[in-house]
Amino acid sequence: MNSFMMRKIFVAISLVSLIAFLSVAQEKEQIIRQLYDSALIHQNAYKNLEFLCKKIGHRLSGSPSAEAAVAYTRQLMIDYGFDSVWLQPVVVPRWVRGETCEVFAFSSFSTGLHLTSCALGGSIGTSLSGITATLLEVKSIDELENMSSKAVKGKIVFFNGAFDEKEISTFSAYGRAVAQRWSGAMAAAKLGALGILVRSMSSGVDDIPHTGSMGYDTSITKIPGIAISTRSADILSERLKIEPNLKVTIKADCRILDDVLSNNVVGEIRGKTKSDKIILVGGHLDSWDMAEGAHDDGAGCMQAIESLRLLKAIGYSPNHTLRVTLFMNEENGLKGAKEYSLQSEFDSKKHVFAIESDRGGFAPRGFSFDVKNATEMTQFQGFSKFFEPYQANHFYVGGGGADISPLKTYGTICIGLIPESQRYFKVHHSSADTFETVDARELSLGAAAMASLIYLLDQIQ
Amino acid sequence: MNSFMMRKIFVAISLVSLIAFLSVAQEKEQIIRQLYDSALIHQNAYKNLEFLCKKIGHRLSGSPSAEAAVAYTRQLMIDYGFDSVWLQPVVVPRWVRGETCEVFAFSSFSTGLHLTSCALGGSIGTSLSGITATLLEVKSIDELENMSSKAVKGKIVFFNGAFDEKEISTFSAYGRAVAQRWSGAMAAAKLGALGILVRSMSSGVDDIPHTGSMGYDTSITKIPGIAISTRSADILSERLKIEPNLKVTIKADCRILDDVLSNNVVGEIRGKTKSDKIILVGGHLDSWDMAEGAHDDGAGCMQAIESLRLLKAIGYSPNHTLRVTLFMNEENGLKGAKEYSLQSEFDSKKHVFAIESDRGGFAPRGFSFDVKNATEMTQFQGFSKFFEPYQANHFYVGGGGADISPLKTYGTICIGLIPESQRYFKVHHSSADTFETVDARELSLGAAAMASLIYLLDQIQ
Repeated sequence: MNSFMMRKIFVAISLVSLIAFLSVAQEKEQIIRQLYDSALIHQNAYKNLEFLCKKIGHRLSGSPSAEAAVAYTRQLMIDYGFDSVWLQPVVVPRWVRGETCEVFAFSSFSTGLHLTSCALGGSIGTSLSGITATLLEVKSIDELENMSSKAVKGKIVFFNGAFDEKEISTFSAYGRAVAQRWSGAMAAAKLGALGILVRSMSSGVDDIPHTGSMGYDTSITKIPGIAISTRSADILSERLKIEPNLKVTIKADCRILDDVLSNNVVGEIRGKTKSDKIILVGGHLDSWDMAEGAHDDGAGCMQAIESLRLLKAIGYSPNHTLRVTLFMNEENGLKGAKEYSLQSEFDSKKHVFAIESDRGGFAPRGFSFDVKNATEMTQFQGFSKFFEPYQANHFYVGGGGADISPLKTYGTICIGLIPESQRYFKVHHSSADTFETVDARELSLGAAAMASLIYLLDQIQ
Repeated sequence: MNSFMMRKIFVAISLVSLIAFLSVAQEKEQIIRQLYDSALIHQNAYKNLEFLCKKIGHRLSGSPSAEAAVAYTRQLMIDYGFDSVWLQPVVVPRWVRGETCEVFAFSSFSTGLHLTSCALGGSIGTSLSGITATLLEVKSIDELENMSSKAVKGKIVFFNGAFDEKEISTFSAYGRAVAQRWSGAMAAAKLGALGILVRSMSSGVDDIPHTGSMGYDTSITKIPGIAISTRSADILSERLKIEPNLKVTIKADCRILDDVLSNNVVGEIRGKTKSDKIILVGGHLDSWDMAEGAHDDGAGCMQAIESLRLLKAIGYSPNHTLRVTLFMNEENGLKGAKEYSLQSEFDSKKHVFAIESDRGGFAPRGFSFDVKNATEMTQFQGFSKFFEPYQANHFYVGGGGADISPLKTYGTICIGLIPESQRYFKVHHSSADTFETVDARELSLGAAAMASLIYLLDQIQ
């Protein structure tokens, strides 16, 4: 064969490859378009979230409504024709808020102030008469830990570290502020404090208190922890400048009960060629008890179920086994995630990828991949172009999510759906986390983005 | 000089250039960071929007509250220390909604249906007894225009073309649906119809009617136009399948009054080296009268003022003259924009760039540049990297905005701020467009993005 002929053959092969490559890319684009179309037209995630929020309500671990949510989502996956649907038992902590939470600040000048408040999740209660003590304001755990026990003993510590408004991602601001809430009571009790007040973990200034879990250590005295609204925190801080010895009374009748049995809800669609390999998608079914847990994380659960329904609806037959897991008890123990990950050791199937949605049902902007470096990121970065038409092409290296993170031990690549973050911490863990704050299209776009990513991951050879 | 020496010198020059280049880029990054920090910490746009929405309210052209808004924003720019602030007189149409808008559908089976409705902006009213006629449903102007006048004459035409949910940008869906509202009455009157009902221009299905301007032609009989909520439209359409000869009564006491004098509000900061060249930033001060015009377009006005305040606040001394224009009457006439553009011919200064914010106060995602092609886009595309840390780096070729578009005739490059679009058309032109639906951080991020772009444009040699 002469070189001219060889070149002709080479050109021909290149053209065929190019066409094949283009047609593969085009086919992927078309399938993704179908997933988005179906999600936007039918808006099932939104309809199901409405049921979850309005007919069932909050889903605090161990509560009757959490169990109702287990039954509802199990049935939903059965109704959608998933190949297998089952419950995985999990022992979860049981905490009840009670009826009362009061924070009253005395004043030499006026009749005093009632502050908007709520008990932190997991807190012990107070006696009926409450705890009355002088208030000590600090801005961080560090600031407190630099104080002498003499300065702290017998007082109520007021953690008033605000979100850094300059952070563009509100999750970064939350991450930097949240230690006060989780570790505040332990740090304060070590120095002899009687209780803590914590500025609500919110990106706004308003009258809504935000709960969230607090930690205790068996070696340290348990003292109660109460969140006050950001506006109450500002008012209290201003008042302290005028009356540095200001006293407060805190009362709460929340209490810790015995652990109870609950469940993770799991459903799967069997893979055709790699059925022993799992692509997992999930959110957490439990929520705090202040409202309906619409964004946190009813949204993620309904998106996870919808993502598999969408793939079924367009007639896609997956290579890998696709599995939805709705984790129980993310909020106050992560017991569901731990149990699931432990059991995955005995699973004959291996989890290759896990995708979590637990950052609210807002407009999706991309995905965060829990990989070591840019090199490992390369193949996933290549996917981002498919998400450009949907404005969800921000793909970067970062955390996947709390519930899937234990799977990392077993080599699973964890991925988080990243929605717009600005509004999330105004509703998070508060009475404002209601269905009405979720937009049908934004939620549906998230479900479509997850289904599309599952599809692309499933196509990896 | 030998080649070794030459190479050394070349390398040295390259290094110096690189360092200079890096330090210029770093300086830009730092200034942009300052703008964002100031916007997020002080949230002035949000505070000012609260005043505009809650103390002044809607701002329909020619209404007393529109004039109050003119006075308020003029004073705001004076208080912020802009170098010059003035009003530019504009003659605007005056339309009043009246007290009544009713749409009642008769039924052979039941007592009939009251539908949620509102008059379209600019519509004539009906007599006190209203208009009762058989309903004719169509999905588009095209469908109507293919009908005979016999089929249409004496009827009320019901335009029921829905948004295409599959469109990712809700602005695209709006753009494709809105002809029914604008041209519906003209098209229907030509064929002898007595009035029109129009499905609300909304991306959702709910009970909220959305107004918006409708057109009349002097050569065609004026007939009234009324919007019904999307849910009412769905109900009515279902009912028509059962009762194809269903009659409706429409009543409205809206009316067109004589034109009145109003104003654009203009303020500027003089440039130092290119004071004869203007970078304009603006929004429209008027709004529909259903609520507070918070997103449409109180948000844009407050962001425009804030963008200049931010530049002043960080001590930036601009090369170009920076000008804010708050246009009057975008909603029902565009008279302010037309007047402004006409007068710009006599201005000794030339408008080189104009930036508009009129797509709601949602989280900014980037900017749309009204340039001819990718080549013209190149220099602006280079700016997008500065917006990556703020997740507002989606820069593309597209329209700038209605109010600045007349400036294109004079060679101005028009640019639109592009926020997240999913929630906009649920509130647009309706009773839901209230301050409460605006997020302080999202609004502030938009103002910071605009200030940052003004800064970068001002630095172009």
